[in-house]
Amino acid sequence: MAKSEKQCMIDGEMYNAWCSELTLERVNARVLVHKYNATTDEQASVRHELLQELLGSTDQEDPPFIDPPFRVDYGYNISMGRGIYLNFDCCFLDVCPIKIGDNVMFGPHVQLYTPTHPLDPIARNGLKGKEFGKPITIGNDVWIGGSVIIMGGVTVGDGTTIGAGSIVTKDVEPWTVVAGNPARIIRRLEMHPDTRDDVQHRIS
Amino acid sequence: MAKSEKQCMIDGEMYNAWCSELTLERVNARVLVHKYNATTDEQASVRHELLQELLGSTDQEDPPFIDPPFRVDYGYNISMGRGIYLNFDCCFLDVCPIKIGDNVMFGPHVQLYTPTHPLDPIARNGLKGKEFGKPITIGNDVWIGGSVIIMGGVTVGDGTTIGAGSIVTKDVEPWTVVAGNPARIIRRLEMHPDTRDDVQHRIS
Amino acid sequence: MAKSEKQCMIDGEMYNAWCSELTLERVNARVLVHKYNATTDEQASVRHELLQELLGSTDQEDPPFIDPPFRVDYGYNISMGRGIYLNFDCCFLDVCPIKIGDNVMFGPHVQLYTPTHPLDPIARNGLKGKEFGKPITIGNDVWIGGSVIIMGGVTVGDGTTIGAGSIVTKDVEPWTVVAGNPARIIRRLEMHPDTRDDVQHRIS
Repeated sequence: MAKSEKQCMIDGEMYNAWCSELTLERVNARVLVHKYNATTDEQASVRHELLQELLGSTDQEDPPFIDPPFRVDYGYNISMGRGIYLNFDCCFLDVCPIKIGDNVMFGPHVQLYTPTHPLDPIARNGLKGKEFGKPITIGNDVWIGGSVIIMGGVTVGDGTTIGAGSIVTKDVEPWTVVAGNPARIIRRLEMHPDTRDDVQHRIS
Repeated sequence: MAKSEKQCMIDGEMYNAWCSELTLERVNARVLVHKYNATTDEQASVRHELLQELLGSTDQEDPPFIDPPFRVDYGYNISMGRGIYLNFDCCFLDVCPIKIGDNVMFGPHVQLYTPTHPLDPIARNGLKGKEFGKPITIGNDVWIGGSVIIMGGVTVGDGTTIGAGSIVTKDVEPWTVVAGNPARIIRRLEMHPDTRDDVQHRIS
Repeated sequence: MAKSEKQCMIDGEMYNAWCSELTLERVNARVLVHKYNATTDEQASVRHELLQELLGSTDQEDPPFIDPPFRVDYGYNISMGRGIYLNFDCCFLDVCPIKIGDNVMFGPHVQLYTPTHPLDPIARNGLKGKEFGKPITIGNDVWIGGSVIIMGGVTVGDGTTIGAGSIVTKDVEPWTVVAGNPARIIRRLEMHPDTRDDVQHRIS
């Protein structure tokens, strides 16, 4: 049997985003997102239920706190650990898997862009061409500043800080601080986790 | 007869944005935008009617697909060709003409800023001063990445790609890829359209 | 009596953002913001009342014109002079005081970020750790371009212009134009205010 457009999408192969299956799934995701964005802070249990329906996986005992508005393409490609906070207006385009570890804080308006298109404008062919994506992986104990953009294919290491407004086009080494367009290392954290009792205690 | 503030605005001359005619037109545009942003993906015909009323011109057979929310100042200064896609949250400030060709894709949160103000803070004079704008022109077969900002006066050539998060302050040469703040050429496409059968076929 | 978490927050000391007092205040602010964002341009008096309730101080005779949507954390730490205009989608995170002078124009999507977190990921500890902030001060006669980010601790001088998309990490000298990531001076205004009759007239 031929691979579906959806499976090609998730696997990072060229696919047609406007096939009927994916178009319908985007419509469904937008309906859930619209409901989520109309909730208030006091509706914690409604929010949790909507996120469980929308997202691929969340922590049941420690669900993410997401300040609306929040936007996604499909939702089911996004998994989040525990201790997750998203400030206002984050936009996670999840044509490929977006994996987020534990204790990750997102400032307002953080953009995670897994989709990409051919650079050749004729192959791209406007809306009639095929596109593809690359996954995004974010480790544990990460702080992502406001309005940061992370491109498809990027892995963000544990213990990192990404300065506000950075454009992250390459992997971020663990225990570093990066900033700029494109983002570059501006500081390495001096105390390595292997040497610290507090980290050992936390990890064990 | 003296030229109206509106005509001065469109012509790129100094004008008063808070005159009664323009203030009323912004109110009207915001009402239409508010209606548009409340539609769902399944209301394609309602969306098309609202965009026809809001925008200067769109393709009747192949209307733009615009993911809400979408924001404009006036709307009537915006013209779009066929095969146009705008992801979530694009903001087109159209005090001067914004012309968009065919087969142009906008990532989420793209910002087109035609308005500008005097740099002299006394001439600018807060909200009581006059302002002016410069047009933005975008060619055919262009992909504009997420959160890109394009300033007034810029022409974006055919077949270009603008990397996510770029700030475009100068014209973009056809068949190039640009990125950064400010945006600079990072790649020229090797195959020139004159030498390619697929392009010839498409253009003819 | 021990200092409250709220007072620690405003004073720029480490505090717990999830204490009951601050959590409730954020809920209250979001309710007011939600109401404000549902108003139309024609409801000027409703908008003014909501802003008076939400913000720390505004000019009574010349209240700010804020295009919704607008977002804040608490609101009461924000003070604005006269002649203030905010375009669509500005986000002012006010854990510490944000003081805005007279005749200040904000383009769309300007982000003022007073909050910060420890760079040490273990001290940061996801949502369970403490955080702190730094104030932002903006002078008179300033134009802040679209999508600019201003970090906590920054003072923006009188008569300045900040180019669209800039990331402002350091103080901005009066009567300069800055741009870039990070923002740097790209122009000093030639006529100093001390030498200009028009400025003397305005200031006196």
